[in-house]
Amino acid sequence: MFDTPPAAQTQTRHHVRPGDIDAWGHLNHAKAIELLELGRYDWITARGGRGAYGCLPVVIRLDVSYRREIFLSDVLITTELKATKHYSAEFLQTIVPADDGVDAAIVGRIWLSFLAADTRRPLRINALPLLRDAMVPA
Amino acid sequence: MFDTPPAAQTQTRHHVRPGDIDAWGHLNHAKAIELLELGRYDWITARGGRGAYGCLPVVIRLDVSYRREIFLSDVLITTELKATKHYSAEFLQTIVPADDGVDAAIVGRIWLSFLAADTRRPLRINALPLLRDAMVPA
Amino acid sequence: MFDTPPAAQTQTRHHVRPGDIDAWGHLNHAKAIELLELGRYDWITARGGRGAYGCLPVVIRLDVSYRREIFLSDVLITTELKATKHYSAEFLQTIVPADDGVDAAIVGRIWLSFLAADTRRPLRINALPLLRDAMVPA
Amino acid sequence: MFDTPPAAQTQTRHHVRPGDIDAWGHLNHAKAIELLELGRYDWITARGGRGAYGCLPVVIRLDVSYRREIFLSDVLITTELKATKHYSAEFLQTIVPADDGVDAAIVGRIWLSFLAADTRRPLRINALPLLRDAMVPA
Repeated sequence: MFDTPPAAQTQTRHHVRPGDIDAWGHLNHAKAIELLELGRYDWITARGGRGAYGCLPVVIRLDVSYRREIFLSDVLITTELKATKHYSAEFLQTIVPADDGVDAAIVGRIWLSFLAADTRRPLRINALPLLRDAMVPA
Repeated sequence: MFDTPPAAQTQTRHHVRPGDIDAWGHLNHAKAIELLELGRYDWITARGGRGAYGCLPVVIRLDVSYRREIFLSDVLITTELKATKHYSAEFLQTIVPADDGVDAAIVGRIWLSFLAADTRRPLRINALPLLRDAMVPA
Repeated sequence: MFDTPPAAQTQTRHHVRPGDIDAWGHLNHAKAIELLELGRYDWITARGGRGAYGCLPVVIRLDVSYRREIFLSDVLITTELKATKHYSAEFLQTIVPADDGVDAAIVGRIWLSFLAADTRRPLRINALPLLRDAMVPA
Repeated sequence: MFDTPPAAQTQTRHHVRPGDIDAWGHLNHAKAIELLELGRYDWITARGGRGAYGCLPVVIRLDVSYRREIFLSDVLITTELKATKHYSAEFLQTIVPADDGVDAAIVGRIWLSFLAADTRRPLRINALPLLRDAMVPA
């Protein structure tokens, strides 16, 4: 296990859908979690993942702060790998409205495990080249 | 501010929808966040809230752990007020599959602020009887 | 193919979630489609389906009318098999708010095909006992 | 009422989210309805709508056919106004995967009414310049 800045960060541009807006007229907090999932999907894809995985990424914990409201607009989702442990990987993600975007409106840390498709038990991160190589040793 | 067990806890029985199940065949982690929202709605309603509020409860942070997979079944969502600060309230919530339910599959701490409907600025918790009276001073 | 009233109808009681409410303050039309899916799931389960199927029910068409607004309340979802063709089954479904419930707020006709899990091609309805036997010949 | 080709059609490029994929591994049929809603939002915005409206577009009926499966990819959503009646407007919409896109995977006709924000009663289409002027008399 090491704990250094990731080699790469991905950024996903996406548009909030009308159905993501809740009765308060802003992006629903649960829908923001779906946007973060899309960002991680892009991160994995950008590193050549997906088919190569043969495993199921599952969220084991998330800690997300909502700092400002987001409305019906384009958003930028950034995703980076922050740290890995034996059986989990921690991602740091932000969501920024594309037009007013300096400070993040939403900041989250998301911990994933990767289950073997057959046994549904967590795999060691070392067995997953995409994640292992994404970390730069200190 | 005080930090004691809440006077009351609510329990909501709900059924997972087929559309909540994702490509991995289990309850999607973002959909679980929607279930927690339903639980808090019930908590507020049970205390006579809602219309009386005249304010918008918004999530400012959530920290949720996913311990076991949940499938297409009935679930029990428990909700209790854990602590209050000047401008926020912290809820402790769990989701348990109704049939195998001893240990929580999902445990979350959710922090809410309550915005004035007109100014969209956070209200003091002391101004909200439902929340204020739900806390028992130590 | 025959075209007669089904032997049985199921009714599902469910609660609208806060996250189903959109910016207009009522049940979002797309979320209503998820409620209908839950109703059909119950219909299939009530007839002993699911595991026995070994096939994937997929929606090939839906025609849904929205007659009244639905708000944050309990709803009753009724589901009945209306007709079958060689490769599809037509369901008639309604959603009624549980408290004011005489007339349906939402009425839909939904056509399903059932794909073989391996080939992903549609199966003949005759090969699916649950559906075949649910129809009473005229 | 007239029934002619619309003056303009909009096209929206959007990306399916992992959370839109259901247990069958394809775009859930209810989520496709959310994509169509996004397409109509873009159509209205492209014509200068939204703020100018002062009214709530609500779906009163939809008739949608699903011809092929859609997976986790970019999609193109086309939206055109097809016809208007006194109190409703009919849109024709399609969804095509961006990469294999000749034939539409999903085709839908969606009927909207526009409610006055205050009375929540439907407005005459003639009172809505954006819609009225979008139709070219035969």
